[in-house]
Amino acid sequence: MQHFLGVDAGGTKCRARLVDVYGQTLGEGVAGPSNLRFGAIAVASQITTACLAAVAAAGLDATILSQCQAGLGIAGFSRAGNLDDLLPLLPEFGSVKITSDGYVALLGAHSGSDGGVIIVGTGSIGLGQRGANLFRVGGYGFPISDQGSGADIGLSAVRLMLQAHDGLIARTPLTDAVMDSFGGAPAQVIQWMDTATPTHYATLAPLVTQQASRGDPLARSIMLKAAVEVGRMVETVMARGAPVCSLLGGLSQEVQGWMSSDLRQRLKPPDGDGVQGAVLLAQKAGPNGVIFG
Amino acid sequence: MQHFLGVDAGGTKCRARLVDVYGQTLGEGVAGPSNLRFGAIAVASQITTACLAAVAAAGLDATILSQCQAGLGIAGFSRAGNLDDLLPLLPEFGSVKITSDGYVALLGAHSGSDGGVIIVGTGSIGLGQRGANLFRVGGYGFPISDQGSGADIGLSAVRLMLQAHDGLIARTPLTDAVMDSFGGAPAQVIQWMDTATPTHYATLAPLVTQQASRGDPLARSIMLKAAVEVGRMVETVMARGAPVCSLLGGLSQEVQGWMSSDLRQRLKPPDGDGVQGAVLLAQKAGPNGVIFG
Repeated sequence: MQHFLGVDAGGTKCRARLVDVYGQTLGEGVAGPSNLRFGAIAVASQITTACLAAVAAAGLDATILSQCQAGLGIAGFSRAGNLDDLLPLLPEFGSVKITSDGYVALLGAHSGSDGGVIIVGTGSIGLGQRGANLFRVGGYGFPISDQGSGADIGLSAVRLMLQAHDGLIARTPLTDAVMDSFGGAPAQVIQWMDTATPTHYATLAPLVTQQASRGDPLARSIMLKAAVEVGRMVETVMARGAPVCSLLGGLSQEVQGWMSSDLRQRLKPPDGDGVQGAVLLAQKAGPNGVIFG
Repeated sequence: MQHFLGVDAGGTKCRARLVDVYGQTLGEGVAGPSNLRFGAIAVASQITTACLAAVAAAGLDATILSQCQAGLGIAGFSRAGNLDDLLPLLPEFGSVKITSDGYVALLGAHSGSDGGVIIVGTGSIGLGQRGANLFRVGGYGFPISDQGSGADIGLSAVRLMLQAHDGLIARTPLTDAVMDSFGGAPAQVIQWMDTATPTHYATLAPLVTQQASRGDPLARSIMLKAAVEVGRMVETVMARGAPVCSLLGGLSQEVQGWMSSDLRQRLKPPDGDGVQGAVLLAQKAGPNGVIFG
C-alpha cells in the first residue's frame, strides 16, 4: 500500500504529515527550525526527526519511509549548492520531490490549482502559478527587497526613532518605545546594527503594529506603506496570471488590516497550509527531484 | 618658533598642512585612506606619511614635528576603543588635539565661528556649533541612518530595479542601467548583497544622478527624496542654533541641485575645507587630547 509524506521545512519549525492512499491523515510530526541557511546537516536532521515522529504517531515502523512518496518544501531552498549537500543526508524515501517552502505554501493555499500567495513574515515574497507557468515576485532578501516584511517594518522604526532623537521629526509613542527597547542609548543601536540580521529587525515589528493600532501617526504610516507595497505584490501576481491570491505568514493579518477594502476583498482565505501543500506535492505524478526553484 | 600642523584624515585620503605662526602655509602632504575602521596601524601610518611629506615640502627636518601644535580630524573617530590603539602609534608632536573629520570640516567651513555643516558622501551627517555647544544630527550609519547619502541613494536604486524586474513598477532607463551593472542577473544582485558595504551601495549613486539629470522619473524621485531629507537636516541644524549652514561632501552639489530654491538660498558656501579646519584646531588654545566626540 502506497503512503504519502508531506514535509514543510520552514525557518521556524519543520512539520511532517503521513497520509494514506485515500488522503486520510495517519500521523503528524514536528521538529525545529529548518532553513538551509543553517546548514544541510541541521535541516536533514530536523526533516528526519519530523518524518520519524509522523511515522511513529501512525503506529508504523521507520522502514515505511522507503515506501513513501515524499514531498518536501524547504526554506532557504534557492541558495545555490545547499541542496547538493542535503540530498545524500535525507532518509531513503520511495520517491522524493523537493521545492521551496514558499511553493508548498502556494500549493496548500489553492489545493494545487492556479493562484498566487504573498507571504509576509520576516521577509516577503510573492509566488504564483498559472498552468505550467510558475513565477515569483520579490523575496530577494533584506534590505534590497522584501518590502512590507517584518524586517522592513523594523528598519523603518529604527530610522524614525533616530530621526526623532535628533529632532528631525517629532517624537511619538512609537519612537519612544523603540528607543526604550535599546535602553535609551543611540550608541547601543549602532553596535546592534553591526550584526543585526533581518530577524533582529523583524523583532521590532510587533512594537509598530501595536502602536499603529493605538493611532501613533508614524506607526500608522509604516503600516500603511507596508500595506501599499504588499498590495502591489498582490496586484502584480494577479496581473501575471494568478486568478486568486492569498496572504500568508506571521504578519499577513496585520498588514491586511491596513489595506484598502477593495484590495482586501480580492484576497481569498487559503484552503490549507504548507504541510498540506507538501502532501499534494508528494501525490503529484512526475519524476523525482527538484521541481521548482 | 612655533609651527601648526593640521591633518584631515578622511576615508578617501589623508591631507596635512604645516603653517607658521603667521598662518603662512609652509608645506603640504597627502597620503591614503585613513578611516579608523581600517585599523589604528593603517591610520597612524597614513597620518605619519602625510605629516612627513608636509614637513619635507617645507624644507624642514622631521624633528620639527616634536615642536608642532597638531590638530587631527580623523574619520571613524567615534568608534569606541579605536583611539586608544591609535594614540601610541602617532608621531610625537609638541601638542595634539584630536577630533572627527566631520568636526574639522565644520571648523573649516565657518573659520571656527558658529555654524553648521551637512556632509553628504557615502554616508550623511549634520554637525553644528553654537558657542560651546556642539551637536550632531544623523550619521549613525547605513542602513539605520545616513538619509540622502550615496549608500541610501544606491539602495533605493537596487530596490527599484528589482521591483521593475518583477513587474511591480514600470522599467525606466535607470532600472535598466542598474540591472546592466549587475550583468542582467538578479541572482548576482543577491550574491552581491551578502557582502555589500555602504561603499558598494554608494557606487550606484552616479548612475542615479546621471539618469535624474536626463529626466528619468524614478531617478528624479530618488534625488528629490534625498534633497528633502538633507534639507530637513539643514533646517534642524539651524533650528538647533547654527546661524549658517554649508553643504559638504562628494554628493553635496548633486543633492543641492534638487533642493527647493528657498532652502538653497539659506546655504552658505564653506570658507575652507577640512584641512584648513584642522589647522584652526591646532591653533586653538586648550589642553591636549580628544576635544569632541
